[in-house]
Amino acid sequence: MIHPIPPGSRDVLPGEMRELRRLNRALIEVFEERGYGEVATPTIEYDEVMARGDGRASGAYRFFDESGELLALRSDMTVPIARLVASRFADAEMPLRLCYLASTFRAVTPQRGQLREVVQAGIELIGAPASEGTAEVVEVLEAALDAAGLDRAVIGLGDSDLYRQLLAEYGLEAGAQDAILARLARHDLVGLEVELGEAGIGEEQVATCVGLSQLRGGAEVLEQARELGGGAVERAIARLGETYAALEARGVAERVRIDMGLLRDLGYYSGAILEVYDPALGYVLGGGGRYDRLMHNFGLDLPAAGFGLYVERVHLAQMEEQRRARGET
Amino acid sequence: MIHPIPPGSRDVLPGEMRELRRLNRALIEVFEERGYGEVATPTIEYDEVMARGDGRASGAYRFFDESGELLALRSDMTVPIARLVASRFADAEMPLRLCYLASTFRAVTPQRGQLREVVQAGIELIGAPASEGTAEVVEVLEAALDAAGLDRAVIGLGDSDLYRQLLAEYGLEAGAQDAILARLARHDLVGLEVELGEAGIGEEQVATCVGLSQLRGGAEVLEQARELGGGAVERAIARLGETYAALEARGVAERVRIDMGLLRDLGYYSGAILEVYDPALGYVLGGGGRYDRLMHNFGLDLPAAGFGLYVERVHLAQMEEQRRARGET
Repeated sequence: MIHPIPPGSRDVLPGEMRELRRLNRALIEVFEERGYGEVATPTIEYDEVMARGDGRASGAYRFFDESGELLALRSDMTVPIARLVASRFADAEMPLRLCYLASTFRAVTPQRGQLREVVQAGIELIGAPASEGTAEVVEVLEAALDAAGLDRAVIGLGDSDLYRQLLAEYGLEAGAQDAILARLARHDLVGLEVELGEAGIGEEQVATCVGLSQLRGGAEVLEQARELGGGAVERAIARLGETYAALEARGVAERVRIDMGLLRDLGYYSGAILEVYDPALGYVLGGGGRYDRLMHNFGLDLPAAGFGLYVERVHLAQMEEQRRARGET
Repeated sequence: MIHPIPPGSRDVLPGEMRELRRLNRALIEVFEERGYGEVATPTIEYDEVMARGDGRASGAYRFFDESGELLALRSDMTVPIARLVASRFADAEMPLRLCYLASTFRAVTPQRGQLREVVQAGIELIGAPASEGTAEVVEVLEAALDAAGLDRAVIGLGDSDLYRQLLAEYGLEAGAQDAILARLARHDLVGLEVELGEAGIGEEQVATCVGLSQLRGGAEVLEQARELGGGAVERAIARLGETYAALEARGVAERVRIDMGLLRDLGYYSGAILEVYDPALGYVLGGGGRYDRLMHNFGLDLPAAGFGLYVERVHLAQMEEQRRARGET
């Protein structure tokens, strides 16, 4: 007899669980070897804390406690760790290196195959500014992908401020900007063109936005973007160029693909953003980036960056790659 | 600047986290070595599923999903695993051996020092009847305590049906029974006497209940209980005697203390119940027992038993025992 569980959730049986444990252990070991100390925070936070991270979307699961306080299931780990750092590590020597392995909770759209509960393994590097801090985060991310056996995984590198600044340059109000940015964050390039067409900006400006969103590759992309022009583009490629140079200096640029169309759906990012793909799978395995303004919301002015890998998707990619290595595809 | 977290929750910093990881790993290894396969279930279940386990108390944290269904944070792992077994293992060869390491969520009473989020490591043995099944569970529990370095930990063994049957024998209604059983489950012996005094039963019967609640020790306790008399007592000591004999046959009776006053606060127990203490700490480190009727609520008629250890309390006991071993107390 099948007893249903909420859509977007699942049971894990022993065979898969053993593999997930092995993967989790390998990821935490990579982080710890590089000086990242593991922390744990409560699954249930005050809703007000989660809302400080991303005013647009506080927790999808909210309820009142026995004293009438509004609580929320955490929707990510970066915001709770920002709170933790402000509360417990304000006087610590910087940069501070922390890592985690934890469940996070998101609303799901029925029939979309989204997970309600996402296990994330990730790091936060607090107090190290761009572009050196970003390069260290990418280096750890590559080591984690190597430990998972995902040699072919690619890291997309974009700039979270590019489009908002560009659209502001075009004179669009915040509301109109949000609709366009939401399409970009969902990789919905058809919807993007529709939204841009309806925004009341010139054809050339639409063409610039669409053209930028399709630019991806090595350092040459920065030159191609420059030709599309504008102050916002110029500032973004300056930041990206510095980051890319820092990656090259560390010898970790090879797996990084600059992606001018990249946008993460969390409100706290600023500057460099990251997204991880594996060619074996059609979806994102994790992401991250800089959040230089987030710590300020908790009373500490510190630059910061990090990433989170979606463990179950990494595991799926791992299985696909193993199948491929055995010549089964 | 301190940013509050909900009462009864806490952050774990790297030094402690490393020790907790090590403890978790040791416990899961003990379970797996004995053939218990680890499973994971969703943190969020349908409230209706949690309520099937224990009609008295479904989840303390409930909320509606995007389709208007009532969801709940799991309050324990035994009920979700009963659901999982009925859904996925109905045709499996029995007995089935499963283990878990997972967060569970409970309501807290302010200022009582209770934890809202409790990490539990435990096993479920499905399809093995008393008293052999119970004895195997106790054997695994002892191995887990050994792996945690808690050589001095004691396992209390009681009978969950004793008091309800005894109070029914005295003619008490279910409501009056519940009030008395709640005091017992909280180890509140003063409150127990008050409730019994107000229940309208004879002095001798009050004396029997109070006397039973204070009987603990080895096999001799069963004889002492028999002298207090009555059919309910007779049936309970017959069950306890069989279990104790099975423990002796496996050579695992030494750390078990029969406790006629033991009662767990979960509604699904039947027959043998277990509770773990360490002399270094004043509180319960975990518990379990038989739940021979629970699987029936999910459409499978199978006997079952298990235990869950509260990992953070086990860790505290571990530190106390280490301090003691170094001669610091």
